[in-house]
Amino acid sequence: MELTWFNIIEILGTIAFASSGTTRAIRKQYDLFGLFVLGFVTAIGGGTIRDIFIGNLPVEWLSDFTLISTITVTVILTYLFYRFMDKLRWWVFFFDAIGLGLFTILGIEKGLEFGLSPVIGLLLGVITACFGGVIRDILSSEKPLLLREEIYAFASISGGVLYILLNFITEMSHEVNAIFSVLLIVLVRTLSIRYKWSLKVPFKTQPPE
Amino acid sequence: MELTWFNIIEILGTIAFASSGTTRAIRKQYDLFGLFVLGFVTAIGGGTIRDIFIGNLPVEWLSDFTLISTITVTVILTYLFYRFMDKLRWWVFFFDAIGLGLFTILGIEKGLEFGLSPVIGLLLGVITACFGGVIRDILSSEKPLLLREEIYAFASISGGVLYILLNFITEMSHEVNAIFSVLLIVLVRTLSIRYKWSLKVPFKTQPPE
Amino acid sequence: MELTWFNIIEILGTIAFASSGTTRAIRKQYDLFGLFVLGFVTAIGGGTIRDIFIGNLPVEWLSDFTLISTITVTVILTYLFYRFMDKLRWWVFFFDAIGLGLFTILGIEKGLEFGLSPVIGLLLGVITACFGGVIRDILSSEKPLLLREEIYAFASISGGVLYILLNFITEMSHEVNAIFSVLLIVLVRTLSIRYKWSLKVPFKTQPPE
Repeated sequence: MELTWFNIIEILGTIAFASSGTTRAIRKQYDLFGLFVLGFVTAIGGGTIRDIFIGNLPVEWLSDFTLISTITVTVILTYLFYRFMDKLRWWVFFFDAIGLGLFTILGIEKGLEFGLSPVIGLLLGVITACFGGVIRDILSSEKPLLLREEIYAFASISGGVLYILLNFITEMSHEVNAIFSVLLIVLVRTLSIRYKWSLKVPFKTQPPE
Repeated sequence: MELTWFNIIEILGTIAFASSGTTRAIRKQYDLFGLFVLGFVTAIGGGTIRDIFIGNLPVEWLSDFTLISTITVTVILTYLFYRFMDKLRWWVFFFDAIGLGLFTILGIEKGLEFGLSPVIGLLLGVITACFGGVIRDILSSEKPLLLREEIYAFASISGGVLYILLNFITEMSHEVNAIFSVLLIVLVRTLSIRYKWSLKVPFKTQPPE
Repeated sequence: MELTWFNIIEILGTIAFASSGTTRAIRKQYDLFGLFVLGFVTAIGGGTIRDIFIGNLPVEWLSDFTLISTITVTVILTYLFYRFMDKLRWWVFFFDAIGLGLFTILGIEKGLEFGLSPVIGLLLGVITACFGGVIRDILSSEKPLLLREEIYAFASISGGVLYILLNFITEMSHEVNAIFSVLLIVLVRTLSIRYKWSLKVPFKTQPPE
């Protein structure tokens, strides 16, 4: 997991996540400090929860200046170019999907590295990829989006399962498997938005209206 | 703490807690992923906070497949039989009270095992038993029930105090003391519902209406 | 950091934070247990998050009886004398500002002690000083005040930066530097309230009203 392109994509994903948090803070009319808090929390919240759960402390970003500088610059740029964010919407969505994919793989790898089983690894991958957004939603007093509407976690899970299966079944390197898995996650995200997929569960017990 | 019946009751308590989280998610119209998140968080949230506070990492459920499978099956069954949950209300309440009791004792035992004082042990017991529900409430955008209305924490505290006192005063085994303590917790919960006890604090300073 | 007056001020800060949490719980009509939870969480939440991030576990307050007793007594007294709290408003504000200052310094010192860089130390100082209030706001279903309105985090940051600079530049003892830094934080807080400073960010993109 030392390849340079891996790190580049991780940074792109971090940018997308930090930008999503900053955008939320702007919409909520939070102050400057609020912008930074939501930017940071969205980008590193999932990985932080994962690191705490597995006891990988101090949490990694405390000594990762690349990450901290990346998020800081992203928050500032997102604020300055907020008026153009709407035009960049597709790019933001695209990087966010890649970030979702890559953070899923990173979480799984971290779990396996700590000697945990693939199922737990998958769980940690989903936590890494999805729970920064949950904290963002809590801090901005929104019902967690993840739990309600979008095929967000499902995309993460599908790619995570593919990654674990490929590692087991094929002889391909983890890097190659990661590419396929991230591509699947981006694909599922794109299709789910395009065709309005939903995991909404039907309940026959609800009163007729 | 290795007795089989202990584990059985722990599983019953876990089922009750997971079911309560799933029910909440269904009522909030969360999607399938939301059902699992709230089921898991309610069942293991309290123990996770305790384990993090005392540095018992990786958190225990990461390697407890019985627990993870139990919660998974509970979420699915709660969803499938949601329409009957109302009829099962009494059983859900009963298992929840037992879960509250047992998680209190488990938390205290864990604290003592880590060389902490009985007072801190009691605190950890209450955290183990009650804070899964607090996280459930936060994730479903509800004011934490625990902090407002019910004699929930009080039941946990009363049983915890009894447990610690019995361990100090009597020669009885911890298992026997645990039985008495869990029974007290179930009793306090039942009476508090039956007679609508409340810890609501009166304030003379409130403006007359 | 072993001076007696340091500990005294830390206790005064803890009292102010615990009192602010209890007051919030009373206003939200939480029950007795809710008063204690919000009192504790506000006073120790920031330090707990810091300790978890840096892996300083078990968290310190678990073995700090002075702290636990202080908070317990504060919660009870705040409840009993709630009707006078309004007259004590200035004192509460003053101790809260001192608490903010001291917790910032304590967090920085803890970070340096764990071999982290000054920038990360500053971050940990701000987390120590400010995030107890964030958890208080989440638990009482309020939009986090910190992220919206007040020059709270900014005061903490300004004092933290001064403290780190003084340690680098001057030969003065950390204790003396801490005094100057806490004074700056109290000053910034006071001026920000007096002159209604704000870090609200302007957005040209907002629709005209």
